[in-house]
Amino acid sequence: MAYHPQHVAELSEGELLARIFPRLGAGKALLGPGDDAAMLAAPDGRTVISIDTLVQDQDFRLQWPGGYRTTGFDVGWKCAAQNLSDINAMGAVATSLVVSLTLPGDTRITWVEGLADGLSAALRALGAEQCTVAGGDLGRGQSLVVTAAVTGDLQGRAPVLRSGARPGDTLAVCGALGHAAAGLALLDSGADYAAMGGWERSLAASQSRPCPPLAAGPAAAVAGAHAMMDISDGLVRDAGRLALTSGVGVDLDPQALLREAEQLTEAAKGMGANAVDWVLGGGEDHGLLAVFGHGTELPRGFRRIGVVTDAKGSGAGTVTVRGRKSPPVGWDHFAG
Amino acid sequence: MAYHPQHVAELSEGELLARIFPRLGAGKALLGPGDDAAMLAAPDGRTVISIDTLVQDQDFRLQWPGGYRTTGFDVGWKCAAQNLSDINAMGAVATSLVVSLTLPGDTRITWVEGLADGLSAALRALGAEQCTVAGGDLGRGQSLVVTAAVTGDLQGRAPVLRSGARPGDTLAVCGALGHAAAGLALLDSGADYAAMGGWERSLAASQSRPCPPLAAGPAAAVAGAHAMMDISDGLVRDAGRLALTSGVGVDLDPQALLREAEQLTEAAKGMGANAVDWVLGGGEDHGLLAVFGHGTELPRGFRRIGVVTDAKGSGAGTVTVRGRKSPPVGWDHFAG
Repeated sequence: MAYHPQHVAELSEGELLARIFPRLGAGKALLGPGDDAAMLAAPDGRTVISIDTLVQDQDFRLQWPGGYRTTGFDVGWKCAAQNLSDINAMGAVATSLVVSLTLPGDTRITWVEGLADGLSAALRALGAEQCTVAGGDLGRGQSLVVTAAVTGDLQGRAPVLRSGARPGDTLAVCGALGHAAAGLALLDSGADYAAMGGWERSLAASQSRPCPPLAAGPAAAVAGAHAMMDISDGLVRDAGRLALTSGVGVDLDPQALLREAEQLTEAAKGMGANAVDWVLGGGEDHGLLAVFGHGTELPRGFRRIGVVTDAKGSGAGTVTVRGRKSPPVGWDHFAG
Repeated sequence: MAYHPQHVAELSEGELLARIFPRLGAGKALLGPGDDAAMLAAPDGRTVISIDTLVQDQDFRLQWPGGYRTTGFDVGWKCAAQNLSDINAMGAVATSLVVSLTLPGDTRITWVEGLADGLSAALRALGAEQCTVAGGDLGRGQSLVVTAAVTGDLQGRAPVLRSGARPGDTLAVCGALGHAAAGLALLDSGADYAAMGGWERSLAASQSRPCPPLAAGPAAAVAGAHAMMDISDGLVRDAGRLALTSGVGVDLDPQALLREAEQLTEAAKGMGANAVDWVLGGGEDHGLLAVFGHGTELPRGFRRIGVVTDAKGSGAGTVTVRGRKSPPVGWDHFAG
């Protein structure tokens, strides 16, 4: 009988790479994997770059209480999505990913192949066809760690920073808000995944395979956004960061928050949760938070969610809901 | 009494970043940390990029048998050195690092501060002043994982690939060969670190804080190197990779190997080891392996170590020592 290796410990680095590369699709890099570094075009003489990591049991669980098992495909997808979102938030178009995998020896080879498939599928599905997996690194470790660095092309535009918000500006969001948090609550609730219907599974997928609005970042830049960032730690926390950096406050519109929460109300009811909390505190959808000059027509997909205020009285970085201080919500990796 | 936090679990992400940033020095990036992505100049319209990871207990030990404790400074230095080496190997000049840290909650804050100091110090000491830590990511995990992606500028030159070696070419090395392996053997031997003399400590430092020859990569490119890579997994293994990619063989010169081993002979004797094995199999010095046309004057620091052969008979990728097949040595993360 032929020997079929099952786990990464049974393969050399070269053999594992040979399983991964064909799944990444034809590269669009000037120079792809195979040398000590890859090479990308930077047509306007600048490159934007960011790095982000997914850690087992921190950023994803391999096994959820209700029975759902996180696939390699999920992790590959999420890795691409959250990294590309950082480039989107600058108003740029992603050009490459370089990916470092730290794998326990008993990781199934099919799981790693799934991860490569998930990376590729996310690039296609999210409309990032011009982005390529240009290189990577493989190593062993006690737990799964997936890090990617992502580069982007500003196409000649200025980058949209966090610091450009001015009092009177319109605060807007694009993409899902609170869906990934609802999915997290659902996966964490112990509800039987196998018995879930389509809508619940789609919420769970918002957590496992988020869909950042990748066309919206460049569109916001073209429309003249004053400031922008991606919402990875929750609306209140991230809006607070943008406001602090800009030396302003932001005031959220409760009606707009309720509208955002509407789609999640039934799911929240089923779990005894509050959909508005998910909207205010849920990260990981990787939607965009952007600020536009008062009266600017918002680009497609953006919804007005509040207004930028001067920081007098309350102090820079203050987030209020119709003038009242909102409770501190949102994820911090280190605090408490 | 004032409260002084000791471990990263006691700080928020923002507080920990506030400890790190001032240690990284003034940035030379067009846009440094603080936004969703950093921005770098790419003056010739291209960016080279690579990614590399250091994992606790795989790529470094926190505590060695002889008592040496790996410092944050060591890990920061090694992270910078091994990443910059990949850019060097393309003939490029490093322009930025983005660094992702995965930290157990009980990691001492001073250890992380040391890591930032080590990154900065390596950039200065290795002559990479034009390189800046442009951004990063912090997260929690069970064990320490440090990943950096590095970008580089080819300054208008073509990248030097692994695939350009031709029969008759001269094979040359630059930088230390086998020193990091000797240091590893020493640290692993159980010899009391506290009792070591200067030469032994300097060997140990070759493992903890390698010094890749960062000026040599661009110099080799200017001198017309046909092929190049960095030696991270050992001379034989890496020469085999270069040869395989180029469709050639390489034949090493035993006299040259003995010359390389000379400085390590005494240390090897003390440990009952063979210095030539360290030269043949030792990675992690991050020296350069380069191939030049026959008769080319070698750039400063390069030593002739062998010759490129046609692969007839033995097959592409074969490494011989004066025509005899050398034993397979060198580190593979996955095999065995």
